[in-house]
Amino acid sequence: MKKVSDSTVTRLSLYLRILNELNEQGLSTVSSEELARRGGTTAAQVRKDLSFFGTFGKRGLGYAVPDLLERLRAILGLGRHWRVALVGAGKIGSALFGYQDFRRQGFHIVAVFDADERKVGQWWNGLQVLPVEDLEDVLRAEGIEIVIVAVPAEAAQGVVDRVVAAGVRGILNFAPTKLDVPPEVTLKSVNMTVELEGLSYALSNGERSGGKRRGTRADRS
Amino acid sequence: MKKVSDSTVTRLSLYLRILNELNEQGLSTVSSEELARRGGTTAAQVRKDLSFFGTFGKRGLGYAVPDLLERLRAILGLGRHWRVALVGAGKIGSALFGYQDFRRQGFHIVAVFDADERKVGQWWNGLQVLPVEDLEDVLRAEGIEIVIVAVPAEAAQGVVDRVVAAGVRGILNFAPTKLDVPPEVTLKSVNMTVELEGLSYALSNGERSGGKRRGTRADRS
Repeated sequence: MKKVSDSTVTRLSLYLRILNELNEQGLSTVSSEELARRGGTTAAQVRKDLSFFGTFGKRGLGYAVPDLLERLRAILGLGRHWRVALVGAGKIGSALFGYQDFRRQGFHIVAVFDADERKVGQWWNGLQVLPVEDLEDVLRAEGIEIVIVAVPAEAAQGVVDRVVAAGVRGILNFAPTKLDVPPEVTLKSVNMTVELEGLSYALSNGERSGGKRRGTRADRS
Repeated sequence: MKKVSDSTVTRLSLYLRILNELNEQGLSTVSSEELARRGGTTAAQVRKDLSFFGTFGKRGLGYAVPDLLERLRAILGLGRHWRVALVGAGKIGSALFGYQDFRRQGFHIVAVFDADERKVGQWWNGLQVLPVEDLEDVLRAEGIEIVIVAVPAEAAQGVVDRVVAAGVRGILNFAPTKLDVPPEVTLKSVNMTVELEGLSYALSNGERSGGKRRGTRADRS
């Protein structure tokens, strides 16, 4: 399979959301034009994105909604449960723990860690907050595949190094800092301040940085 | 001024963070090579990103750290306070309200709204949660410039339409849904599930989607 770009994968997530809506509305087929219109992209882009993964749909008939939905879920690795740990039981960590969309998509937080002894031992919806000293042992024992890092910036690289050493290959980082991981590890970062700075740049400079037209990248969520 | 891409603006935010660190360490100059190394990009990219905004640094001498820091802050619209409202006083909203990095960069949440009458009237750090019915009136009266949307997906477009109608030109969206705004409005979306799906894709397909090498895009935060 050819190397697929991050932006293609992000669009697959978007198509998945649109297909879920169409499916709930009881629609059985959708054209690449309609998917493109709802996703703020072009029909050619939709067809190109899907072409990486095989043949979908029939010319002139469009895509069968339930079939494409199921195949996209499989491509994105969503046809299963992922065992996730959360490091950092602060405000951001707490919000992420309660974020229902994670569980809905198969991401199950099964362990929570914190360095603060006032937080360790607290019960979070049936899970006891664990001391970060136990991180490697628990990650291995629990078969954790993805770790969400929600610790202060200055602690983040240290946590990530330990997570990597414990064999975890997927990290979602919320700490506002640059992190290094070895090539075999996938790191995604969510930085809310960077997005706000993009807004203040656009507002200060009188341009719209969200994209060239309605429904472009920044609207895809 | 030429149209500046979103990715350039994101890198400016990154350079700003690096310069802040260098400044705290007492360093007075930095080369484009060193900025590039710390930011996971190339010296040519650093020079190109900065060239949109005028002349910086001297050949062979590098950039003066405090000067570049101040000019980047001005370019990003950070040399001032932004009046921000938060719509949605749930878990995500609460975490964002307490997120200190926002205030540090000049984004001040001065109004909080919710549709749930059990939340309306609560005191959040000196601010009383307001009923969402009052949204337009308060946005205008308070001179709000940026609105953070942290409501359920199905409510988000309705909130955004009202925010736009009230004249706000910058929106940061956390609802996991696609939103439409007119061209004069800048919309940025943070979608945590999409990032997790990018991880599960990479883990399922045995590739690292975070970038081609250490310190590339996904590490920039």
